[in-house]
Amino acid sequence: MKLYSMPSSGNSYKVRLLLALLGRDCVIVDVEESSAELLAAKAAGALPFGKAPVLHLDDGRMLPESNAILVWLGEGTRYLPGDPVARARMLSWMFWEQNQHEGVIAVRAALHSYPSRAHLATPERMAELLERGHALLAVMEEHLAGHDWLAGDAVSLADIALYAYTHTAGEAGGFEMARFPAVNAWLARVAALPGYVGLSG
Amino acid sequence: MKLYSMPSSGNSYKVRLLLALLGRDCVIVDVEESSAELLAAKAAGALPFGKAPVLHLDDGRMLPESNAILVWLGEGTRYLPGDPVARARMLSWMFWEQNQHEGVIAVRAALHSYPSRAHLATPERMAELLERGHALLAVMEEHLAGHDWLAGDAVSLADIALYAYTHTAGEAGGFEMARFPAVNAWLARVAALPGYVGLSG
Ligand SMILES: N[C@@H](CCC(=O)N[C@@H](CS)C(=O)NCC(=O)O)C(=O)O
Ligand SMILES: N[C@@H](CCC(=O)N[C@@H](CS)C(=O)NCC(=O)O)C(=O)O
Repeated sequence: MKLYSMPSSGNSYKVRLLLALLGRDCVIVDVEESSAELLAAKAAGALPFGKAPVLHLDDGRMLPESNAILVWLGEGTRYLPGDPVARARMLSWMFWEQNQHEGVIAVRAALHSYPSRAHLATPERMAELLERGHALLAVMEEHLAGHDWLAGDAVSLADIALYAYTHTAGEAGGFEMARFPAVNAWLARVAALPGYVGLSG
Repeated sequence: MKLYSMPSSGNSYKVRLLLALLGRDCVIVDVEESSAELLAAKAAGALPFGKAPVLHLDDGRMLPESNAILVWLGEGTRYLPGDPVARARMLSWMFWEQNQHEGVIAVRAALHSYPSRAHLATPERMAELLERGHALLAVMEEHLAGHDWLAGDAVSLADIALYAYTHTAGEAGGFEMARFPAVNAWLARVAALPGYVGLSG
């Protein structure tokens, strides 16, 4: 099993975090943004959708998309709820993450941190992303004010998927995290899971 | 079982299409874009993430996100592959649909068709969306040139999810579909499935 992973990216970090929580070994191939390794991996056909992460299975089959990789690795572990409704709601959060959250929370952070994108970070766009991000964090806050975890009664892949970009939303994205105490308490619960590793660890 | 569904929306259509293919009954509550019904559903808390579609289960629990609803309804049917790798690749396509395809293919069509968004349809933005959409359709074309279906050897939820916005990409989105013959052949295969209904049927 081999993971093509972008060190600075939350989507790749999700998978590295789950591997660490599960104590599973995996060969990691680093393909950093704008690197020669990324171009080479694309040219070699190692990234079917042109993006990282991608998991290469031992039989050569390739699995792109961070959240699909989480489901694949999570099968049969405590991170995939047994209750069918909890499992369905876990997927709701994971699709929401890809459709709503990532395109705002991660994108605002990327506009801050990748110099190649600075020209896109107009004041209007940054203000709009700030407002939309706060609305998305409020959706999480509302749920987490009444529940410890996003889906069902225990930690699941939904928590791993949403942790990745939420835990850097304050520092990297400039979101006002003090407004979301239940989100902060949940972030601390994820970081306390045995086996936890940080984004650059 | 009750589905809050937006008649004009591909995300809601996905679910209506699967219900029809499965021959399953479901009460449909129409919440059209900009309608009083949509506002009322939001105010009543019927749309947990503020968007349609949402499936209300008979015990009152709510399932948002079109693709999570597809997985819930597809469980135990021919639309959810038995082979674990095919199932994982089905999810890869479905996350890709939400993260890459929908934000380009559906968004360009929406900029065309909802008058309230016409001011966002600048020539630069429409040209950029056209180019990105053609690149996304090329990803599908490359796969479908060698396979009848997106995941595994048979139709799956991935085909339903991606059909919704792809089948209107030419007419509604202005994409040059003649460049993608394998995609067109696949669209025809989906439309020939027994029980098929169109977007407004
Ligand atoms: N939906 C994908 C998104 C992956 C993605 O956007 N990856 C970015 C880094 S965060 C990437 O590989 N960018 C390199 C490129 O586009 O050339 C997932 O969740 O895996
Ligand atoms: N990721 C969601 C997206 C749903 C979505 O964007 N729904 C739109 C219509 S396509 C909506 O409800 N818009 C109404 C609003 O935002 O007020 C899904 O796939 O279900």
